[in-house]
Amino acid sequence: MDKKERILDIERLNKQLDFVLELDKLKYIERRSYVADGSRHEDDAQHSWHLALMAMLLGEYANEPVNVAHVIKMVLIHDAVEIDAGDTYAYDTEANGTKREREEKAADRLFHLLPEDQEKELRGLWEEFEAGITPEAKFANALDKVQPIMLNDATGGKAWREHDVAASQVIERNAGTHSGSDRLWEYVEGLIKKNKELGNLK
Amino acid sequence: MDKKERILDIERLNKQLDFVLELDKLKYIERRSYVADGSRHEDDAQHSWHLALMAMLLGEYANEPVNVAHVIKMVLIHDAVEIDAGDTYAYDTEANGTKREREEKAADRLFHLLPEDQEKELRGLWEEFEAGITPEAKFANALDKVQPIMLNDATGGKAWREHDVAASQVIERNAGTHSGSDRLWEYVEGLIKKNKELGNLK
Repeated sequence: MDKKERILDIERLNKQLDFVLELDKLKYIERRSYVADGSRHEDDAQHSWHLALMAMLLGEYANEPVNVAHVIKMVLIHDAVEIDAGDTYAYDTEANGTKREREEKAADRLFHLLPEDQEKELRGLWEEFEAGITPEAKFANALDKVQPIMLNDATGGKAWREHDVAASQVIERNAGTHSGSDRLWEYVEGLIKKNKELGNLK
Repeated sequence: MDKKERILDIERLNKQLDFVLELDKLKYIERRSYVADGSRHEDDAQHSWHLALMAMLLGEYANEPVNVAHVIKMVLIHDAVEIDAGDTYAYDTEANGTKREREEKAADRLFHLLPEDQEKELRGLWEEFEAGITPEAKFANALDKVQPIMLNDATGGKAWREHDVAASQVIERNAGTHSGSDRLWEYVEGLIKKNKELGNLK
């Protein structure tokens, strides 16, 4: 490697590590969901890890064949924009109105920290997740909806109760889940029914 | 699907989801490292997510060509055994003596929650990580060592100072890092040197 190549190489690594360190902030973005023992709120880093684990194990339930590695990469960064835009609670109608704009701006800043090729790749993964059209994006979105329902179920509906959430809202919010995975949608329907009976959902 | 197949299918999904929920406990396993702003300790779920992100971005620096998806899967579950065995601090000599035995027992219980094929796959990934022989395992182990050094550097050596860690210990602990990635080892050497000069490492 000559001197010029060496400098470019250092610049590239520095950009990548700056991004890695910037994304550390996902560890402080609190979600409304609680971890399974209800002791504290989940954060975005934990949530993203949990979705990646689910993608690894549950790929067989996607309606269409999916590239699991691609799903994993997508869920690992799907919430990155919340570093600037914050977590928008699923049932907060007002905040959801400005969500897209806030998140686009965040994506511009964050992914631009990376070298150009990786900026393109990660921005692409995020756009793909948001669009929810490819089999991988549909499945990733299904996981993103199923996971908090599992945690709500495990905690006796702790977050649902706190925010007076109705079963009908959860069903509406999950409208796309069946298009990612009929099997997981069926499972989630069972959980919603059970939690409505238990009074955890209005 | 006939009735028998249907029951087997439900059993399989239940096993997978039991494992997914059991692994939620990684969100409560505290590490000694602090997150980058020093406000609190990192947990195993956050750490695993961070390594997966690094694997996704830094694969080009592995000494040997690696299957990045395989590295990601490995780091996502590499700390699962700590649910039973706890986090063993790198510089606690006594605890490290019983580590392997405690972790084997934990692996027996945890991975056995899964359907047999996935038990075999995930146990295999964990064993591969622990053995550290394949290019993927060497690189995953390198990331596992580099990440806490980055966080220590970002926090002015907070965890190092608390535990009176010496630069020589960090170097010893990182003996294998160069075999996973000469480039990341070089970067880490720079951080160790800098933090020794700053008095963050003895």
